[in-house]
Amino acid sequence: MDSSEVWKNCIGAISNLIEEADFEIEEDGMEMKAMDPSHVALADFKLSSAAFTEYEVDKPTKLGVDLTEMDKIFSRANKNDESTLEYTEEDNRLKLEFIGASTRRFSLPLLELEEEELPEPDLNFTATAKVTAGTIREGLKDAALVGDNVRFELTKGKFLMKIESDTGSAEMELSEEDEGLKDLNVDEPTKAMYNIGYLEDMFKAARSKDIVEINHGEDLPIQIIFKMADGEGILKFLLAPRVETE
Amino acid sequence: MDSSEVWKNCIGAISNLIEEADFEIEEDGMEMKAMDPSHVALADFKLSSAAFTEYEVDKPTKLGVDLTEMDKIFSRANKNDESTLEYTEEDNRLKLEFIGASTRRFSLPLLELEEEELPEPDLNFTATAKVTAGTIREGLKDAALVGDNVRFELTKGKFLMKIESDTGSAEMELSEEDEGLKDLNVDEPTKAMYNIGYLEDMFKAARSKDIVEINHGEDLPIQIIFKMADGEGILKFLLAPRVETE
Amino acid sequence: MDSSEVWKNCIGAISNLIEEADFEIEEDGMEMKAMDPSHVALADFKLSSAAFTEYEVDKPTKLGVDLTEMDKIFSRANKNDESTLEYTEEDNRLKLEFIGASTRRFSLPLLELEEEELPEPDLNFTATAKVTAGTIREGLKDAALVGDNVRFELTKGKFLMKIESDTGSAEMELSEEDEGLKDLNVDEPTKAMYNIGYLEDMFKAARSKDIVEINHGEDLPIQIIFKMADGEGILKFLLAPRVETE
Repeated sequence: MDSSEVWKNCIGAISNLIEEADFEIEEDGMEMKAMDPSHVALADFKLSSAAFTEYEVDKPTKLGVDLTEMDKIFSRANKNDESTLEYTEEDNRLKLEFIGASTRRFSLPLLELEEEELPEPDLNFTATAKVTAGTIREGLKDAALVGDNVRFELTKGKFLMKIESDTGSAEMELSEEDEGLKDLNVDEPTKAMYNIGYLEDMFKAARSKDIVEINHGEDLPIQIIFKMADGEGILKFLLAPRVETE
Repeated sequence: MDSSEVWKNCIGAISNLIEEADFEIEEDGMEMKAMDPSHVALADFKLSSAAFTEYEVDKPTKLGVDLTEMDKIFSRANKNDESTLEYTEEDNRLKLEFIGASTRRFSLPLLELEEEELPEPDLNFTATAKVTAGTIREGLKDAALVGDNVRFELTKGKFLMKIESDTGSAEMELSEEDEGLKDLNVDEPTKAMYNIGYLEDMFKAARSKDIVEINHGEDLPIQIIFKMADGEGILKFLLAPRVETE
Repeated sequence: MDSSEVWKNCIGAISNLIEEADFEIEEDGMEMKAMDPSHVALADFKLSSAAFTEYEVDKPTKLGVDLTEMDKIFSRANKNDESTLEYTEEDNRLKLEFIGASTRRFSLPLLELEEEELPEPDLNFTATAKVTAGTIREGLKDAALVGDNVRFELTKGKFLMKIESDTGSAEMELSEEDEGLKDLNVDEPTKAMYNIGYLEDMFKAARSKDIVEINHGEDLPIQIIFKMADGEGILKFLLAPRVETE
């Protein structure tokens, strides 16, 4: 994934969940960390300076961004455009430039955002899987036929997404020989239920063939990790489980 | 057409017209026959046991199915998935399984449907045509610009679909040299008018290049026959004519 | 562009702006000239007889056409269809025929339209550019993120489209080395603002790679010229500027 595509996909996914957030620009890279308004999902997006062709920071800065507007701009980038982000204190705007068949420049006013206390849960995951994003997306679409929440179950050799209701049931099973499952490590079997809509938004960050890491524990939040730009970029989502009353 | 695609296309077409129907499962094959709620269209879908890679029936069974739900499930099947349908008396659900990059299972509760008396009209068709589905679909879209009902006229050497109104007219003519017309046999010329929306729904059963048989008679219902799975599957529609007052 | 595609694209673009217009059919070609209802845009579409494979006119005729209906019919034409337009005084309808995999005929009732006085402004353009239609379309989509009107600025060596508002800004710059800009001649630098929606409609007349001529002057209407059918067809739009209060 080249750099415009990283931004396009990651901001695309995050902006479905979170409207505004601060980007912390440091000398060695930048980070955006925020919760969705209903405090169910936490996003943590990091790009190290090495993920950029050129990266220059005069002094650490915090930039409050309307992610919906930023997403609209990145969705105008073409696949092979060379993209630049720039901020100068004078005009207090974020400037974006895409160079391709023409040179296109956008600017975005910055926001004063209130500090938000973000939870830093210490989670004891007992199972880890590496899966292709496309496979999980298919499983989510299947599950959406039946209801709003899908249960993940990770056991030795088996990755399961399932949902049951009065109108039917859907289940996706990945075994170690399936090409959608790249790796599976289960210390203790896990089971928990999550909202399908949130998961669908998160998985927009990746292309179908991209490999995604899922960390899981019994009734714990699910952690979903997208790596990009040869590991110099990372997008982590944490999504709280639903109580299993459905 | 492999088997998942047969189901996908046929159930897709039927479910636009008919919401619920009984599948009669016999030892040598299965059949679904039903009318639409306004009793204008009759569908008859048959698959012989030879259309399946494996087919096992312990005793003849009638399964009442919500076709809309079944269509949603089949629309989740991928083109090359190996698909399985299973029913056991214990859990009274129809189970569907698609095996591809993962194994996906769905279940569908069954319905108690009231017996419906289906007409078995003895129709004396005097003209028969074999046409490609895509050609007819184009003709239907043309006609839809002008109004709701289109007239079919079959004469020696000529297959015609036409519609006229105050806002204009549209007409599609197929002659024997046109590649859209594969065969035409007219004992007596025929003419009758049908609802465009119903026809559009029915023609969703076929891919553009598929050859469809049309049986026709003066002011009679039109019979449309889709054959698939090397002739082991057949979907027949019968659609009542509209009175020509338009 | 073969002939059906010329009609399809040109009538498609014009019909978004203008609902009804007279076609003047003369012995050496035909012309349609009309303004949009709010008198902001003027369209002038000419096809010389040489643009047609066959062209026959018994006597000069004026045909009042509902362009929305005509567009619907041309949008049903397939790319390689051979198309025919025919008018005979007896039935007072315009007949269209497309010959491809089948023969399809449409007819369109003609309208009695009131004579409209069209302005023939004598404009003193001081800059001319040749650009690819696709590039301008991209610039218009960028601008539409920010507001309703976009400013064109043509200076020596630089073609600029820009828009600014409280919610941000967008700008597209074409320099002489950019592949989107084929030619640029600036006698005096120009600047004027136009409605994005109108421009988007007009640019539907061309395919992305087509080269479009833009004639421009300080605060003057913008003239956009699409040539087709080896120069035998020409579609000219004139669009009034917006006062720069935004």
